Amino acid sequence: MKQGRVITFGEVMMRLSPPGFAKFSQATNLELAYGGGEANVAMSLAYLGMQAAHVTRFPDNIIGRSATQFLRQHWLDTSWVLYGGELMGKYFLEKGAVHRSSQVVYERDGSAFAKIQSEMIDWKAVFKDADWFHWTGITPAISEGALACCAEAIKTANEMGIMVSADIHSRKNLWNYGKTQQEVMPELVAGCDIVLASRQDIAEIFGIDVEAEKDGKFQSAAQALMDKCPRVKKIFDKKRETISASHNSIQGKVWNGKRYLKTDTLDVTHIVDRVGTGDAFAAGLIYGLLSYQDDFQALKFATAACALKHTVEGDVNMVSRENVVDLMEGNTSGKIIR
Amino acid sequence: MKQGRVITFGEVMMRLSPPGFAKFSQATNLELAYGGGEANVAMSLAYLGMQAAHVTRFPDNIIGRSATQFLRQHWLDTSWVLYGGELMGKYFLEKGAVHRSSQVVYERDGSAFAKIQSEMIDWKAVFKDADWFHWTGITPAISEGALACCAEAIKTANEMGIMVSADIHSRKNLWNYGKTQQEVMPELVAGCDIVLASRQDIAEIFGIDVEAEKDGKFQSAAQALMDKCPRVKKIFDKKRETISASHNSIQGKVWNGKRYLKTDTLDVTHIVDRVGTGDAFAAGLIYGLLSYQDDFQALKFATAACALKHTVEGDVNMVSRENVVDLMEGNTSGKIIR
Amino acid sequence: MKQGRVITFGEVMMRLSPPGFAKFSQATNLELAYGGGEANVAMSLAYLGMQAAHVTRFPDNIIGRSATQFLRQHWLDTSWVLYGGELMGKYFLEKGAVHRSSQVVYERDGSAFAKIQSEMIDWKAVFKDADWFHWTGITPAISEGALACCAEAIKTANEMGIMVSADIHSRKNLWNYGKTQQEVMPELVAGCDIVLASRQDIAEIFGIDVEAEKDGKFQSAAQALMDKCPRVKKIFDKKRETISASHNSIQGKVWNGKRYLKTDTLDVTHIVDRVGTGDAFAAGLIYGLLSYQDDFQALKFATAACALKHTVEGDVNMVSRENVVDLMEGNTSGKIIR
Amino acid sequence: MKQGRVITFGEVMMRLSPPGFAKFSQATNLELAYGGGEANVAMSLAYLGMQAAHVTRFPDNIIGRSATQFLRQHWLDTSWVLYGGELMGKYFLEKGAVHRSSQVVYERDGSAFAKIQSEMIDWKAVFKDADWFHWTGITPAISEGALACCAEAIKTANEMGIMVSADIHSRKNLWNYGKTQQEVMPELVAGCDIVLASRQDIAEIFGIDVEAEKDGKFQSAAQALMDKCPRVKKIFDKKRETISASHNSIQGKVWNGKRYLKTDTLDVTHIVDRVGTGDAFAAGLIYGLLSYQDDFQALKFATAACALKHTVEGDVNMVSRENVVDLMEGNTSGKIIR
Amino acid sequence: MKQGRVITFGEVMMRLSPPGFAKFSQATNLELAYGGGEANVAMSLAYLGMQAAHVTRFPDNIIGRSATQFLRQHWLDTSWVLYGGELMGKYFLEKGAVHRSSQVVYERDGSAFAKIQSEMIDWKAVFKDADWFHWTGITPAISEGALACCAEAIKTANEMGIMVSADIHSRKNLWNYGKTQQEVMPELVAGCDIVLASRQDIAEIFGIDVEAEKDGKFQSAAQALMDKCPRVKKIFDKKRETISASHNSIQGKVWNGKRYLKTDTLDVTHIVDRVGTGDAFAAGLIYGLLSYQDDFQALKFATAACALKHTVEGDVNMVSRENVVDLMEGNTSGKIIR
Amino acid sequence: MKQGRVITFGEVMMRLSPPGFAKFSQATNLELAYGGGEANVAMSLAYLGMQAAHVTRFPDNIIGRSATQFLRQHWLDTSWVLYGGELMGKYFLEKGAVHRSSQVVYERDGSAFAKIQSEMIDWKAVFKDADWFHWTGITPAISEGALACCAEAIKTANEMGIMVSADIHSRKNLWNYGKTQQEVMPELVAGCDIVLASRQDIAEIFGIDVEAEKDGKFQSAAQALMDKCPRVKKIFDKKRETISASHNSIQGKVWNGKRYLKTDTLDVTHIVDRVGTGDAFAAGLIYGLLSYQDDFQALKFATAACALKHTVEGDVNMVSRENVVDLMEGNTSGKIIR
Repeated sequence: MKQGRVITFGEVMMRLSPPGFAKFSQATNLELAYGGGEANVAMSLAYLGMQAAHVTRFPDNIIGRSATQFLRQHWLDTSWVLYGGELMGKYFLEKGAVHRSSQVVYERDGSAFAKIQSEMIDWKAVFKDADWFHWTGITPAISEGALACCAEAIKTANEMGIMVSADIHSRKNLWNYGKTQQEVMPELVAGCDIVLASRQDIAEIFGIDVEAEKDGKFQSAAQALMDKCPRVKKIFDKKRETISASHNSIQGKVWNGKRYLKTDTLDVTHIVDRVGTGDAFAAGLIYGLLSYQDDFQALKFATAACALKHTVEGDVNMVSRENVVDLMEGNTSGKIIR
Repeated sequence: MKQGRVITFGEVMMRLSPPGFAKFSQATNLELAYGGGEANVAMSLAYLGMQAAHVTRFPDNIIGRSATQFLRQHWLDTSWVLYGGELMGKYFLEKGAVHRSSQVVYERDGSAFAKIQSEMIDWKAVFKDADWFHWTGITPAISEGALACCAEAIKTANEMGIMVSADIHSRKNLWNYGKTQQEVMPELVAGCDIVLASRQDIAEIFGIDVEAEKDGKFQSAAQALMDKCPRVKKIFDKKRETISASHNSIQGKVWNGKRYLKTDTLDVTHIVDRVGTGDAFAAGLIYGLLSYQDDFQALKFATAACALKHTVEGDVNMVSRENVVDLMEGNTSGKIIR
Repeated sequence: MKQGRVITFGEVMMRLSPPGFAKFSQATNLELAYGGGEANVAMSLAYLGMQAAHVTRFPDNIIGRSATQFLRQHWLDTSWVLYGGELMGKYFLEKGAVHRSSQVVYERDGSAFAKIQSEMIDWKAVFKDADWFHWTGITPAISEGALACCAEAIKTANEMGIMVSADIHSRKNLWNYGKTQQEVMPELVAGCDIVLASRQDIAEIFGIDVEAEKDGKFQSAAQALMDKCPRVKKIFDKKRETISASHNSIQGKVWNGKRYLKTDTLDVTHIVDRVGTGDAFAAGLIYGLLSYQDDFQALKFATAACALKHTVEGDVNMVSRENVVDLMEGNTSGKIIR
Repeated sequence: MKQGRVITFGEVMMRLSPPGFAKFSQATNLELAYGGGEANVAMSLAYLGMQAAHVTRFPDNIIGRSATQFLRQHWLDTSWVLYGGELMGKYFLEKGAVHRSSQVVYERDGSAFAKIQSEMIDWKAVFKDADWFHWTGITPAISEGALACCAEAIKTANEMGIMVSADIHSRKNLWNYGKTQQEVMPELVAGCDIVLASRQDIAEIFGIDVEAEKDGKFQSAAQALMDKCPRVKKIFDKKRETISASHNSIQGKVWNGKRYLKTDTLDVTHIVDRVGTGDAFAAGLIYGLLSYQDDFQALKFATAACALKHTVEGDVNMVSRENVVDLMEGNTSGKIIR
Repeated sequence: MKQGRVITFGEVMMRLSPPGFAKFSQATNLELAYGGGEANVAMSLAYLGMQAAHVTRFPDNIIGRSATQFLRQHWLDTSWVLYGGELMGKYFLEKGAVHRSSQVVYERDGSAFAKIQSEMIDWKAVFKDADWFHWTGITPAISEGALACCAEAIKTANEMGIMVSADIHSRKNLWNYGKTQQEVMPELVAGCDIVLASRQDIAEIFGIDVEAEKDGKFQSAAQALMDKCPRVKKIFDKKRETISASHNSIQGKVWNGKRYLKTDTLDVTHIVDRVGTGDAFAAGLIYGLLSYQDDFQALKFATAACALKHTVEGDVNMVSRENVVDLMEGNTSGKIIR
Repeated sequence: MKQGRVITFGEVMMRLSPPGFAKFSQATNLELAYGGGEANVAMSLAYLGMQAAHVTRFPDNIIGRSATQFLRQHWLDTSWVLYGGELMGKYFLEKGAVHRSSQVVYERDGSAFAKIQSEMIDWKAVFKDADWFHWTGITPAISEGALACCAEAIKTANEMGIMVSADIHSRKNLWNYGKTQQEVMPELVAGCDIVLASRQDIAEIFGIDVEAEKDGKFQSAAQALMDKCPRVKKIFDKKRETISASHNSIQGKVWNGKRYLKTDTLDVTHIVDRVGTGDAFAAGLIYGLLSYQDDFQALKFATAACALKHTVEGDVNMVSRENVVDLMEGNTSGKIIR
């Protein structure tokens, strides 16, 4: 495989969760980690063996530095972490089981990252030696400054000939600084080569609502998006069936302008931690596309990586390339490795 | 919904259990909580949004006061907690999985509660502004004094026009102070409006053993009990199928003198904590009956509450009304709430 | 003793701290508690046996409700807790030892409490049956709204004949919403009966900088403040000698307009948790003044309570009246109680 | 049942594993236990009610003595534990789930046990009052000295008329001191009465590779081994289906020279700890053979014991005879025992 | 040293304590251990290298068996543990610091041990091969049955020529079954060779209250007791100065009928766990008397052992002979041993 | 200050220790960290704000990679970590208190690092852009290969004009591969600019045993060493007084060929973790020498850094430059920083 270098950009939050299946009503200590959609992709890629750097901003205190240390521990290059502002973004996670939903409470208003400004980052320097830039729809939703940085990053990446991927799964309740995703996202997506989105996301963000036979809806919507944004070459999605909070199944799909491909379904029967599974899919996809000359192989790799993440605690998919390939090739047995 | 006020009465024990699936043979620390059938009902009702007070007795020391603090933390009004005696009732819980049973060891002989005396409680004062009194068959089994208090409470509630419910699931090995449930229970049940009991309980306690077609047995027994105790208007039960220690299924049923109603079965595939699920059913029932004008809706609410409790650690069903309604209306997916 | 009822008002923060002496750089879980200057006073009073209610505002989510549950667990009446806003105030605590300082990072900007508004609280209702109102200089420093609520509370308490005490130890770096403590505090202090302040606080806030013989400075400053604010009858302070982060000594002092009294020094040689020791002093003082007809006894009680808090984990002084009296009467041996 | 006395011999390793499903990449503390194939059999037998002593060698320091204390805690007679050497054998266990494999890393080269010498053990004294000696194929794979001790033990047991059983499941990557299992094992197995081995083990170790109809393969191989080693009377095996790391099923089988018997399959749907399940099978078998006059009963007992171990944390099958009999008789419900 | 064998007899309680310096008011888990004055002596002796067996009685359930496993883990011979009865004796320990006292709450009424009967123990068999029997004044205080067993044990030991020692530090609030220590103890003490008691104990139990010069009081009282009980040859005591809960100092003293000897004072400046330090003194004494031909050496050994126990968590003095000798010889530096 | 870049070389071990003051005899989980004399220096320097890279070798498995992650988390550049071999070096630490010594057990024979070979490291590449190389006397004691690497590193550093410092505190019991420190060390020390050693070290390693007035011994020995090794310009040492395992005092001293300087003594009255304090001194020294033009300032900085380390858990001195400067300037109060 090409040993690529990937850059990601976005907020990293302190993650605080009661141990096991405990609820906040009964917790006296919280497990501490850090995570965020884009950094999760970078860390997961690092575990697969790639070089990855994450660009973000933390408060300049013991909390912010501990967040950087977490990224370093999980193999990231943190040379481009900025310090300033006062609040650390946070999310509280109460883990559910069976019929009881997991519950997430965000506290990210006014965070160090939300106050980021375009001039703080020299993207030309950041992208030196990079092969890929990945962003998500969360970042432009956070603040005017975060949007400006993101737009600048995409523009610079395009100029420098670096691949751009985006995970644009819609989170409409995040947009509260005055702009809407419909106003902002199309221009950003236009600068992307690879997009992760569902039919519903495409409908909501681009107003593309196709009417077609059941199985064809995704590919029609994807093609319509590609017609609007000609740089976009492939659109990936995963279908998740939520049997319960403890049992999901995952299937990958892609429309690459020519073919609509779907993987087999992977059945995750005993979920350990559901958070970050979408990011694991994105990381698997980037890794797969850089490693295989074949969209279907890449998609299978991404789907297997996603399934494995459900069994790993925390936001990060701490599995190796070998682990993913083994599952991708059909070994679902989870036999002890000695 | 009517914002009701519920009073419960019974022993609260210290609950000590090794973490996770560990056994006492290997434990070096124990998780500490407090619980008891009736207080569990009260705390679960409080999480659903009702006012609830629990009447009990603890030793007058740091252990007894910590028990009160636990009830307060879980929203109870503890104005009527009494202090005296020397021993805190206790139960040890070793959590099982799959074919391995959970194991419970009780130590409640001679507890502060067992030494309660009738004259210690002014039920008229306790029941001021109350709408409902709930008790279980455990309380009269503990001691002569506990029985006397319980009888007095029922009598007072009847006089004051307060609804009375009882969960009389038979625990015959508890009765060791000289009386039997057959001697004692019928008179107590006669003062109740709502009863929770299985056909076997009715057979064992009242000597009513009906012979009828399979599905009709419960309703025949229930009707026979209602014939004996005309105040009783409705008899509820839940059918539990124990596939394994990790997997149970639950179905609610009721005979209200006119109709025999059964809910759909809820399949709990990954049990977190089995203890207190019957109390969650009782709490759901009280809440449901106070909220809906419909026995079937109340039963569905109770069954959903019961299913959810299997996924909550400890004795208390720390779920909200919204959680229960969501499941009751058929959303079994446990999707993340953000 | 008169069984009094005390009302406190102020922000309660989530307290997150690495276990033991660990640093954030190495922590993977955090101990969770809640605390704030005024609520700490109320909870400490409750452990001494008084009734206490705290008025504050939390976000209306699982975090805010858990904060309320913490106050309930530690015996407070939480009838007057308000819900709304989005952020929970927070503080991070890294515990030091010997020459290494403890470090506290606050995150309270834009918290639910900071957004409180005057009209949200009906102080007449809150103060029904109350004997005492206590506030601190932190509250008016937080926001315009918090200041307005505090001013209204003092005014109402004065009208209703309720004793008012204030701990005005200066925290000048808190004042960042446009007003200064010099502008705001004098008027608020004018409504107080009892004040806790050092000579430096009086100098900084009121511009009263006395020049006098070493020992007389405090009493001169205190008298000058009392001249400006005739309602104030007594000014208390404690002298803390910080030998190291593990070893402090404490001495109480008071100027009551007639006499300047000082207690013996209590030497705390093995500090467990330094946070909340000032609040323990304030609580001890309120309790002492309500219990004894003697300023010196009250001061001794406060000083002993303060010393004991250094050995209790968390913000709250979870000691009983008996514990304090025992130390106050000179038993410093800490012998096992069986 | 005959209250027998069993002797086992082999290395005991320190077991270090991150809590729950955590990975080493994120662990800051490790759960500590001790285990090893043969000692696990002995400890499991002790929980079933037998007397058991384990012979092994530990470094003469606080670590080695703690290992002995672990064996004592789990009921073993440790009179024959030797001290010397410098390294404690170790294994690191990262627990998997669903498609993610558990991972084991061994560090046993040059351990105190690997340096054991034949003359260190007086087997005549060890076997006084013993009824059974059990060893596994791991021991002769460790070192020349371990092999010599094992050979001496078997010879002595044969001379003293003590039953000998061996679990010879092949671990070919262990053999790295210059000998192969093909050279060494046949002579050792020749001294055994009871053997646990699969068809593959027999093929690999003895070069016996039978070609027969699917179901007949095991019995043909077993008979061929018995033809070579006439002392061996019965060969047992279990068939494990690894649906995932969280879900296995187990079926016992035996060829006793006359009949090929298979138990029903036990389905372990929520695995807690997979390690030591083979040792639990062996222990169940020894207990069963000593308790029942019937190979099929013994096999059912072993299979039930094995299934239960999957739900117990650590290497040791801490279940009682009653627990096993209950499952063996078909009660798979795992109902709470009060 | 003579490798002696010591027998002890008495209740072993479950010990439950909040971690660190936490209070029950804030605890959600408790550290679990087992201890009791006499068993503590036996376990401490085992760590010093002696053989020791403890005789006691536990409930016949998972709790009682875990207690036995604790004794085995800490090297005791548990062949003489009896099973029966229903309650496990318990004590709750809240650890204090500086001026805050540790607090102990006992729950031992009606325990399995309290219901022990004289005929349950065959002391002749127990004392086979034994060199020493040790008991304390706690045992006869528990129940009529415990007293009878204790008296029988002393009588048998006397008959068999086994040394008898007793720690008779007075616990008068334990005596609540109808007898007093003044009635019971003198006859028991008459069968002892070695006694541990303070002047106050002797005064209280025997009514011997000497008036003498300060330093002479202990020896006068001791001699008076020896006059009453001629079998008693030596009386040991330790003087504890309780500077605070975190800082004690210890000095050993003995009257052996001829000389009054006192050790230097050992200053324990940072107490880890105060419980069991008296038992460590007794164990050190037995070990010292068996090892040295010199009362003063024995006393120095006991005092050093006692000082070390203050730094060990739990009831048991888990230190080696080398550790004690090192301190006894004046090395108080606690330098790292590599 | 010059923002320097420091390279260190040496073994990093897994550190396993029971929590708090627990002993291995009672531990069921161990705290996990990684450390080693030279890496501790590098990590401590990184916390002070310098760039630092560590050169070492780990097994190529999940354990070895976790060790690297630990170094990354604590800010090191791990580009030069090698993978290979099979065993991870280890040390077990049982923390003492007061008179009870901490105890360390090493297991490093045959570790991945011990098997390092000279040709594995390209020191020219490693030292690119470096300003300083630091090694200790532990490394050449480990194996022939480690010695060869160390010698090569010193030679290359000398050639490239990079400062070399060595901490040669004698650990004679480490040397067990056939060479002695007397044979090996002098040549290595000859390539150093700065040496940390006591008079005893110099005597033992170089056979220089000066007889002089008490205070002059260190400087005479130091000068004698400098006479033998003219490249060495300054010799530093610290005097530790071990009052107890909980209380040490530290004083720095230096002979720089012209003057003998000593700092004030810092009294560490409540030790949290004694391990790594010597490494903290070395790191402080390197930082001080690079930051100040004054040996005495550098020495004061080193001594303050060393004192602070005693209050930090683990091997690494996780304190900032500001923390050290504050103490170095005389602020010993450890007041809370808010």
